[in-house]
Amino acid sequence: MATICRPAVSVPEHVITMEQTLDLARELHADHAQLDLALRLIENTGVKERHIVQPIEETLRHPGFETRNAVYEAEAKRRVPEVIRRALADAELRAQDIDVIIYVSCTGFMMPSLTAWLINRMEFRSDTRQIPIAQLGCAAGGAAVNRAHDFCTAYPQANALIVSCEFCSLCYQPTDLGIGNLLSNGLFGDGIAAAVVRGTGGTGITLERNASYLVPDTEDWISYQVRATGFHFQLDKRVPGTMEPLAPALKEIAGQHGWDAAQLDFYIIHAGGPRILDDLSKFLGVAPEAFRFSRATLTEYGNIASAVVLDALRRLFEEGGPHDAATGMLAGFGPGITAEMSLGRWSR
Amino acid sequence: MATICRPAVSVPEHVITMEQTLDLARELHADHAQLDLALRLIENTGVKERHIVQPIEETLRHPGFETRNAVYEAEAKRRVPEVIRRALADAELRAQDIDVIIYVSCTGFMMPSLTAWLINRMEFRSDTRQIPIAQLGCAAGGAAVNRAHDFCTAYPQANALIVSCEFCSLCYQPTDLGIGNLLSNGLFGDGIAAAVVRGTGGTGITLERNASYLVPDTEDWISYQVRATGFHFQLDKRVPGTMEPLAPALKEIAGQHGWDAAQLDFYIIHAGGPRILDDLSKFLGVAPEAFRFSRATLTEYGNIASAVVLDALRRLFEEGGPHDAATGMLAGFGPGITAEMSLGRWSR
Repeated sequence: MATICRPAVSVPEHVITMEQTLDLARELHADHAQLDLALRLIENTGVKERHIVQPIEETLRHPGFETRNAVYEAEAKRRVPEVIRRALADAELRAQDIDVIIYVSCTGFMMPSLTAWLINRMEFRSDTRQIPIAQLGCAAGGAAVNRAHDFCTAYPQANALIVSCEFCSLCYQPTDLGIGNLLSNGLFGDGIAAAVVRGTGGTGITLERNASYLVPDTEDWISYQVRATGFHFQLDKRVPGTMEPLAPALKEIAGQHGWDAAQLDFYIIHAGGPRILDDLSKFLGVAPEAFRFSRATLTEYGNIASAVVLDALRRLFEEGGPHDAATGMLAGFGPGITAEMSLGRWSR
Repeated sequence: MATICRPAVSVPEHVITMEQTLDLARELHADHAQLDLALRLIENTGVKERHIVQPIEETLRHPGFETRNAVYEAEAKRRVPEVIRRALADAELRAQDIDVIIYVSCTGFMMPSLTAWLINRMEFRSDTRQIPIAQLGCAAGGAAVNRAHDFCTAYPQANALIVSCEFCSLCYQPTDLGIGNLLSNGLFGDGIAAAVVRGTGGTGITLERNASYLVPDTEDWISYQVRATGFHFQLDKRVPGTMEPLAPALKEIAGQHGWDAAQLDFYIIHAGGPRILDDLSKFLGVAPEAFRFSRATLTEYGNIASAVVLDALRRLFEEGGPHDAATGMLAGFGPGITAEMSLGRWSR
């Protein structure tokens, strides 16, 4: 039985508050026809602060895709190993015990993936499998949990390491002025998370079932335009409403497992934005308090993309964790529109 | 038992011959200090022709990363579905029977991945899992086979679809003049391949074991530099010599399985270049003829990156396939330097 252990999370040292974000929006977009709407949308996110890899002055400059991607690589190499070390320690394993590294990140691009560098630098075995995923965006956190679960189902003695490294601030595009861009500029933050999925043993969520769901014909609702200036994030205004078509998929996976999605003991949900959480609590019939881990991540870090679910799970651990055998759900949402869902039971 | 069925392969209609490649090199690089060496290296590849998605005149122009990536997307959408349809037909399955799509491609970048578009357009189920991999380069063909194998090991009733879409010609960089670039310009071709891995039934290689191996401290031997002009391929001159450290890994996986890597009935090997095949036959102690499928792919299509192993496998099918229960090995090599290896037995 695959168990996802306590995630380790790190956010960078540079902080930008909601007030600073609003001031910047007023300053940079004084002439924008929809400035008031943008300010309202940003305020509604409830994001109190975000952490970013560079000071805000640097972040606002666009030094070109090449330099930005070089910053991504340097910052990833500087920050990821320590998070992995903590995740391994929390799972009571050594690097040599890991059979597969699933590295998810949509905010920089490297080939070979950081996995090769990590294996060389951190005493992972040379036969460690590498699964780098760059194209599932925010859903990749859930996908990583699910692929780790699948791997440990295939090889019950195996251990998987999940690493999520998201520097959303390095995708800031000063020339993108759509209302979705202005909102995104106030919503996304940077963060790194890692967690071990142990094939046997471990304290955390013992994973029992997983599933994916693609909302039909929504490919262009969340997407990157790939340009000489890098990845340009495009957010359709219909995205905040996606919980209506997605909630039935969450109910269905629970139903297939003989569980009621409204009656689980814990929920680890991607905090894409406040409406995602509000709507999901409504459509599932769950008290808003059930999403407190996700809400805390959103408030304190912003939307840290694929790292959100791992940070929300960390907060469940920090609360002390639920009672033994408590039932719960973990779900990531992202481009596609794709949901990556899993069900599990708390195991001490 | 997971069985990889007959791959379907398609190469584009535009053809460039070895003679044309050499003429172009002479014309474009008349002043290059190492022109003679470049011509010799290109001749030594033995690549008779390559197929590319645009006429050569178009290919040589660099219209910017944005336009190129748009061409990648348009050509992938135009060409991939037909290849998938044939792979499904050869596996005697429908799109609805597929549980996971593993899409590997390192020559263009889309988020969401093409998987979302395929699911919407080709009647795949909305709960089809998506595993898009962009960062394993040429090794991704072997990795896709191995991850499909793992998935079907976890879910023995499941079926996986592997799709490899590589338009290497869209990564041509006219300003890259290193000797490794000039060689690459004469080596890589475009191609699309798809194959189904059936959890039960099917004719092809029944997969029994897989493994990865990273050659220590070779991360920068094959890599992309990410720039405003797109992905810039960097090939170290030590790469052709990598079979010496990799052959022991191939012997080891065979040994773990109680097999002798020198005595298998068939070999499906990534045809990175002629020396890879020559050296591997020497280091494994296998007759060069055993690599005839890989050599034919290299000669007729060039190195089509992650699609090579699937095309080589197609050629094994076209030869009629070996005797029932014949033992064989499939191996992809790529950046890392990573080898993705698997062992299986022919099953009719």
